[in-house]
Amino acid sequence: MTKTQETELMEMAKRRGFIWPSFEIYGGAAGFYDFGPLGSAMKNNIIKKWRDIYVCGEGFLEIDSPTLTPHEVLKASGHVDHFTDAMVECKKCGSAFKATDLIKDKTGQDVEGLGKEKMQEVIKQDGIRCPDCAGEFGEVFDFNAMFKTAIGPGSKRVGYLRPETAQGIFIDFKRLFRHARGKLPMGVVQIGKGYRNEISPRQGMIRLREFTMAEAEVFFDPEDPKHPKFSDVAHDHLNLWLSKDQIAGNEKLTEVVAETAVDKKTICNEIMAYYLALTQRFLLGIGIPPAAIRFREQNPRQRAHYSSETWDAEILTERFGWVEVTGLAYRSDYDLVSHAKASGEDLSAFIEEKKKKVVCHVIEPSYGIDRPFYCVLEHSYTTDGKRKILKLKKDLAPVKVGVFPLLNKDGLPEKAIEVEKALKADCLAAEYDASGTVGRRYSRADEIGTPYCVTVDHQTLQDLTVTIRDRDSTKQVRVEVHELPCILKSLLRDEIPFEKAGKPI
Amino acid sequence: MTKTQETELMEMAKRRGFIWPSFEIYGGAAGFYDFGPLGSAMKNNIIKKWRDIYVCGEGFLEIDSPTLTPHEVLKASGHVDHFTDAMVECKKCGSAFKATDLIKDKTGQDVEGLGKEKMQEVIKQDGIRCPDCAGEFGEVFDFNAMFKTAIGPGSKRVGYLRPETAQGIFIDFKRLFRHARGKLPMGVVQIGKGYRNEISPRQGMIRLREFTMAEAEVFFDPEDPKHPKFSDVAHDHLNLWLSKDQIAGNEKLTEVVAETAVDKKTICNEIMAYYLALTQRFLLGIGIPPAAIRFREQNPRQRAHYSSETWDAEILTERFGWVEVTGLAYRSDYDLVSHAKASGEDLSAFIEEKKKKVVCHVIEPSYGIDRPFYCVLEHSYTTDGKRKILKLKKDLAPVKVGVFPLLNKDGLPEKAIEVEKALKADCLAAEYDASGTVGRRYSRADEIGTPYCVTVDHQTLQDLTVTIRDRDSTKQVRVEVHELPCILKSLLRDEIPFEKAGKPI
Repeated sequence: MTKTQETELMEMAKRRGFIWPSFEIYGGAAGFYDFGPLGSAMKNNIIKKWRDIYVCGEGFLEIDSPTLTPHEVLKASGHVDHFTDAMVECKKCGSAFKATDLIKDKTGQDVEGLGKEKMQEVIKQDGIRCPDCAGEFGEVFDFNAMFKTAIGPGSKRVGYLRPETAQGIFIDFKRLFRHARGKLPMGVVQIGKGYRNEISPRQGMIRLREFTMAEAEVFFDPEDPKHPKFSDVAHDHLNLWLSKDQIAGNEKLTEVVAETAVDKKTICNEIMAYYLALTQRFLLGIGIPPAAIRFREQNPRQRAHYSSETWDAEILTERFGWVEVTGLAYRSDYDLVSHAKASGEDLSAFIEEKKKKVVCHVIEPSYGIDRPFYCVLEHSYTTDGKRKILKLKKDLAPVKVGVFPLLNKDGLPEKAIEVEKALKADCLAAEYDASGTVGRRYSRADEIGTPYCVTVDHQTLQDLTVTIRDRDSTKQVRVEVHELPCILKSLLRDEIPFEKAGKPI
Repeated sequence: MTKTQETELMEMAKRRGFIWPSFEIYGGAAGFYDFGPLGSAMKNNIIKKWRDIYVCGEGFLEIDSPTLTPHEVLKASGHVDHFTDAMVECKKCGSAFKATDLIKDKTGQDVEGLGKEKMQEVIKQDGIRCPDCAGEFGEVFDFNAMFKTAIGPGSKRVGYLRPETAQGIFIDFKRLFRHARGKLPMGVVQIGKGYRNEISPRQGMIRLREFTMAEAEVFFDPEDPKHPKFSDVAHDHLNLWLSKDQIAGNEKLTEVVAETAVDKKTICNEIMAYYLALTQRFLLGIGIPPAAIRFREQNPRQRAHYSSETWDAEILTERFGWVEVTGLAYRSDYDLVSHAKASGEDLSAFIEEKKKKVVCHVIEPSYGIDRPFYCVLEHSYTTDGKRKILKLKKDLAPVKVGVFPLLNKDGLPEKAIEVEKALKADCLAAEYDASGTVGRRYSRADEIGTPYCVTVDHQTLQDLTVTIRDRDSTKQVRVEVHELPCILKSLLRDEIPFEKAGKPI
């Protein structure tokens, strides 16, 4: 993807209603994006695909807990103390910067996790000054990245917007474990908003202050970190970027099959390896090519306060390089122990069949939804001569079928509207378009990734047949109108090859 | 529903995982509820049903904008100034009360919208004192009911959690109108969280501080308030509780057909009447009986600052009386004019076919999701002798099929698990249950509203047939295993009567 294509893509995404900056008429606010009509549909399609895997396929329980969370919960979880970013403020103009970003911009150094003192030192030694006014910086300090508010009148009860959906699951452990009838491993998911009060977000959709997360928490007996379905993924190939290679400045990836990675202890256990593989399958499923997926092993200074092993699934993009889209963290018993201690509740699990009591360990595959959304757009946007095509997987496409009258006369529009209505009544996302030439309408449909276009022409009025055009091949077939919903559904599910869907033209 | 049944229902809802108070292990926080695994599934089913009507059926555009909203937006919309509750604080113990609630509790008087002075007067005249400590109250004052926070470091940029999803739509009007290719009426929806910092919420799920909303905004030319599909609903009967009857202390409802209500100007125009009827159809569709639905006309002092005519759809409940679940407000051009003025953007619409420029008027059907959720539970909970049945509409039921082995031996559990897996692979929400007797399992399934239960018995091993039991009639039929997914899907869609689904037993 060239620079021009990138600009074209983002311009298209705004113009056609995928995404645009929020609060635009008020000059916008960094870190916030709106999903327009097409974006909202595509985002829902990504969420559906994730839910199909985790809830339908893996049988995880789904819950829905508040985004607003009282202080006690996030104090116990460690977020009040550790969910911070090192920040500096210009003494002259007051502009605030995330210390790591500032240092990276000015020196290229990655000082993530090195501590405030080290950052202070670099700023001083390199003479880094305010990019806005060249003023001097004050001390580096910790800025808590949670949005804070008061619950109820006054400021007695402090609350925060949740930094992750996970805590809502941990504090419900007792109820959930009873619901699962005491069976381990137990999987629970939550899909919803998460918040991070970024100091000065740039990077568009990659660094958002409000984002959608899909998090899964797998609770298991630490003495039995086996996964019952591990054999299903045992031979999946994974590209790992090991911590030791990162430290050595080595970009090379280690390709392993899941089974070997566990045997060699490269990945801590079967459960972790299972979800790495499942994550890869999800990312492939939404249309990310295999070569653009890697798993980065976080080194200790990069890991969150609760994690003892973390793998980040990353997607390669033209615009932002490798982008973290899923974090797979071994949270051990950190959260359950912390909440048990702070609340006084017993959060251990009695395993009936083994007659023993354990505090579960947790492995968490935590997915962002906005970042993969962006990555899918980038990886789907292609140019074929003059044609611009968003080669979305059919199940992600916001519009499934464009419906056109060949001409805007002779009763063709009326017939086409009738066809569109019938498709909609059958729950197919159809869109009528009668503006400009048919060629222009095909282009518009290609641009937003619509897999099929149906055209009503004069022959339709005679024999009740219409043409279907395939986005990727531009081939066309002619089918009978009454079979249309059924044929389109089969095509969308890849049950029949396009050529066999009707009479080739 | 008796008092005992009410308690039973709420106890069941917690125990079985529909809903429970949030942050329970920390003593809870008033105004917050968690949706457990069953509740979350049922809530998603209600949302799906709503989306099927508004997005698939009516063709509304859906967007998704942030919950966090900068000050400018909510200042312009009037929420910073008018989204307030009259509040009093005890001078002695500091307890805070919503003045209207306090006065209603102590005197039975409804002083909603009467102004702070009047409330002050009542508190003084009736000698109302603090229910907690009998202390004296201070002055009645306005408490802004939005949760406030700061965006970015420092407190320079004030933000609020949105009190409604609607503002995200209004400020995107230009982009949306372009997307709709300049056609009116244009409908746009948003589904997501809304927030209201209630002073002292009681009433469980009815008065939440964080809730899910599904809002629709219908933009139209004020000179043309016709609805193109009005004839579809023209003969729908509506029960209206008119403002004049409320003022006269008269409980009687006026039954009218939609068409007559518009002709007689009881309802302002076709668009408003269309959405009253659509709301009623939605509520009927989720299982609320017709007699438990009414539309209350708000009188001027009850209406929000932006509204010139409002109808509240209300559902009758045993526990809370009539509960408002949908507000249908005529917002006129209030929001577009306010935002145009505050932002300097032209938010008028050029209507191509009429060659004229208008500022659209807006009618807003705004649905809560949590309240109908509660109402559905209450209206579905029934007792038939000893049987407790949640008679949920099949499409709302969180579990569609229970799968049981008749006995826990002879290979029956293995076979039943196989059946469950096959159903799940076919995207049917199936649940395996092998604990206790089959009778107990039927009871448990009835209690959570599972429409069908499949039992694997010894005959299954011989001829590959299983029984299906119908929740409501308790009748059973025997069918072949390989036909099971197909038959269950037909049953769930009401395509075949139960008796014809297989061989009666």
